[in-house]
Amino acid sequence: MNGADALITTLADNGVTACFANPGTSEMQFVAALDREPRMRSVLCLFEGVATGAADGYGRMAGKPACTLLHLGPGYANGAANLHNARRAFTPVVNIIGDHATYHRGYDAPLNSDIAALAAPNSIWVRSAESADAVGPLAAEAVAASQGPPGGVACLILPADSAWNETAVKGPVATPTPPAAPEAATVAAVAARLKAARKPVLLLGSSACGEAALAAAGRVAAAGVRVLTDTFTARQARGEGRFRPDKLAYFAEAALKDLDGVDLMVLVGATSPVAFFAYPDRPSELVPDGCAVETLCGRATDAAAALDQLAEALGAPAAGPVEAFAPLAAPQGRLDAWAIGAAIARHMPAQTVISDDAVTAGLPIFTQTRAARAHDWLSLTGGAIGQGIPLAIGAAVACPERKVLSLNGDGAGMYTVQGLWTIARERLDVTVVVFANHKYRILGIELGRTGAGEAGPAAARLLDLGDPRIDWVGLATSLSLPAVRCDSAESFDAAFAEAMATPGPRFIEAAM
Amino acid sequence: MNGADALITTLADNGVTACFANPGTSEMQFVAALDREPRMRSVLCLFEGVATGAADGYGRMAGKPACTLLHLGPGYANGAANLHNARRAFTPVVNIIGDHATYHRGYDAPLNSDIAALAAPNSIWVRSAESADAVGPLAAEAVAASQGPPGGVACLILPADSAWNETAVKGPVATPTPPAAPEAATVAAVAARLKAARKPVLLLGSSACGEAALAAAGRVAAAGVRVLTDTFTARQARGEGRFRPDKLAYFAEAALKDLDGVDLMVLVGATSPVAFFAYPDRPSELVPDGCAVETLCGRATDAAAALDQLAEALGAPAAGPVEAFAPLAAPQGRLDAWAIGAAIARHMPAQTVISDDAVTAGLPIFTQTRAARAHDWLSLTGGAIGQGIPLAIGAAVACPERKVLSLNGDGAGMYTVQGLWTIARERLDVTVVVFANHKYRILGIELGRTGAGEAGPAAARLLDLGDPRIDWVGLATSLSLPAVRCDSAESFDAAFAEAMATPGPRFIEAAM
Repeated sequence: MNGADALITTLADNGVTACFANPGTSEMQFVAALDREPRMRSVLCLFEGVATGAADGYGRMAGKPACTLLHLGPGYANGAANLHNARRAFTPVVNIIGDHATYHRGYDAPLNSDIAALAAPNSIWVRSAESADAVGPLAAEAVAASQGPPGGVACLILPADSAWNETAVKGPVATPTPPAAPEAATVAAVAARLKAARKPVLLLGSSACGEAALAAAGRVAAAGVRVLTDTFTARQARGEGRFRPDKLAYFAEAALKDLDGVDLMVLVGATSPVAFFAYPDRPSELVPDGCAVETLCGRATDAAAALDQLAEALGAPAAGPVEAFAPLAAPQGRLDAWAIGAAIARHMPAQTVISDDAVTAGLPIFTQTRAARAHDWLSLTGGAIGQGIPLAIGAAVACPERKVLSLNGDGAGMYTVQGLWTIARERLDVTVVVFANHKYRILGIELGRTGAGEAGPAAARLLDLGDPRIDWVGLATSLSLPAVRCDSAESFDAAFAEAMATPGPRFIEAAM
Repeated sequence: MNGADALITTLADNGVTACFANPGTSEMQFVAALDREPRMRSVLCLFEGVATGAADGYGRMAGKPACTLLHLGPGYANGAANLHNARRAFTPVVNIIGDHATYHRGYDAPLNSDIAALAAPNSIWVRSAESADAVGPLAAEAVAASQGPPGGVACLILPADSAWNETAVKGPVATPTPPAAPEAATVAAVAARLKAARKPVLLLGSSACGEAALAAAGRVAAAGVRVLTDTFTARQARGEGRFRPDKLAYFAEAALKDLDGVDLMVLVGATSPVAFFAYPDRPSELVPDGCAVETLCGRATDAAAALDQLAEALGAPAAGPVEAFAPLAAPQGRLDAWAIGAAIARHMPAQTVISDDAVTAGLPIFTQTRAARAHDWLSLTGGAIGQGIPLAIGAAVACPERKVLSLNGDGAGMYTVQGLWTIARERLDVTVVVFANHKYRILGIELGRTGAGEAGPAAARLLDLGDPRIDWVGLATSLSLPAVRCDSAESFDAAFAEAMATPGPRFIEAAM
């Protein structure tokens, strides 16, 4: 057994059985060792941003980490933006980053760089295995660190000699730390504050948006407390049979208007809300003046249990309101995000997973699908576009029995367009939709909001994707995805219905 | 004037007149200010790795920096791999990295991250403009830092409020530091050592591969000293009328065999050579046992002057040997890298710029073009693939009167394939060639060399790009590049001849 064997076996022993990889020379031992560990499924990605985003999607859906295989500092860097998103989603991810042999680093060969420094800002754990004996134990540590709480990105740097040298040391099987039980005194105090408040709200973070936590939050809502979620949550159970909380608005002024008069905000696995961006003369904090902020529980606590106990303390009914499936009428006429949302709500099967990198199209579709069949919605938690396609890959690998829907703005879709190839190669049950409005539309909106004034010709050109227009169907077809362009609500509805009824990869260009 | 105006004006005053951009909300003031500074040409890139690679290509050809415009930490991270290459090329680059408003950072909004920490490993200078008044002066500092010596990547972080607040402060016009004059005593000592050596070699780094330095190195060669260059140089003048040094071999065992018996190695703007990767039981250092290493000059010294003085001290003739244009016969039959190299050598016009991300196809083409018309060859200095298309964009913007040729492995080409769109949009005179062998061929070679053994099915699948095959012509066409597939030497020769005779964007898939 060499260090690479010790690594892969330890990972598999700890339940890490998917590897999203783009290897290089320094990772060849790991690649060869894959043939000696049948439990590990390796998935080739043609760019590291695809691999890391896929690991994020896998982690959100599997509740356990996948690993990536990345080639030294530049390979890590290529994946860092989607790891930024994973950090904000608290997704368990284990990056295996190949490095030069330990004795070779000092020569500063061309691919040498300070990998630990590059990785630190987006990681909760970074270590380098300086010997073959160290590899297995550190791999087990990495898995445990990624699972938290609070959970996040762990990076294990693997020098080439630590991979090729022999070892007898495997890592242990680590026991994940279960979430903490709620504190009774806190629950009681929050309940008392809620009863005394004139206009209280509950704000749910990602850890409180699973099915059980939302059911409990629905009970709290039934006791008269308005429930909201963060604007962007890692994974939210939605649709038929689920409680539907409101969502904190993206634009600060809308959020504050919505919260006007609120005198108590109770955080559940969330932090005090802030504006996504600052704007001249607008506040950063999304807490109204005079509103008190209390915390029911943090991320490390079992949010479902805390919410259930809170519901009890409030004398709430045993069950809150849940959505019934409410079929929408077939959309007609012009193709816009509302029409697309209606088609999605009509046709997506139960247990669909939605990867949302839809930017300006996202909220209309989110709204339209509120009473669709039961599904999970994965948001862009860190604001780094280019997540929509990779996240869908990981979700599909984690949940092969579920339909996965990848929603992408055209600007966002181009970021990690290489992922289309992996969807085709692995024959994943993913339908990719790209909203081809041929512009960075959100930036046209934001330009005015930042007080930068009207766009002159130079500015307008930096927000425009229409010269030349990208032929998305041609692009997807070149990467072996069956693809169709739709330019009316009727044609989209038909194409989407067909995609939902057919297993396997599919691409739809929504010409807006 | 706001901070963004102060920035762009100061950049333009300092000769920075090209901006490779992918903006976001926090950069809207910079975008709007572009319309008030006509000297700045902005070029939209659909992924930040394209923008940074383009800035590298621009800097290598213009000898002065371009700037990039990047969106917070994730935008920087997406560009970091090509900045790794720029660092290894000592290319002047000025990154403008938008950030949250200074007062907004403390709230840790979703896009917040430690930008300075992310940027440090690949930068020689990182500062944040904490007020509008600081922007202009720091911009001038950034330009000066990027120009060195030794030159490299400077990062100016631009908080949104520093961009939108008013200021009366522009930055100064910085005077670049000229390269140092050679030290006479060092030149004399090196000359004496060379005369005494049995089998000496000169090793030229990137700073000694310009036209003047190579002419002087040719004189040294005429005095009986073998001259080599680093394996990968930032920019090397080649072909008709230029002196042709040998190249240090990529594989360590080949390099050491080639250097067998060498008793003196003189470094000219180079560091002591090391293997690109470590391999079990092979040396890291590429200096033969018993060989002394001396330094004629470092990167901060005028290498052409140092080499001319050395030639004088050695009593060399006034001019060394240079290449005559030697037309190759038309290639025939199977399409391989040698046939492609012959076609390139036959048809590329004088002053072509070659951006080399060709991986295994690179050396045959480099060899075939040794007696082609005069050209500049830009190598992959840092080993981070995905440079070939972006670098060509920057070179074409810097040198609009020159033909630019972008050579890419298919694995490498997929990394920053978004750059094809920018070539089409800007109507750049770039011919892109992709070598479609449908595999990471270099890794197949390296797998054996690292002692990892034969590839089993899982390993082989991670080195294979052929399932499904990428339709490169379809892909390039979808991004509006005129594209053709060639599967024989004759068809490639004809297509390449036509591309060289026709201005504007062109794409050739070389089916290998």
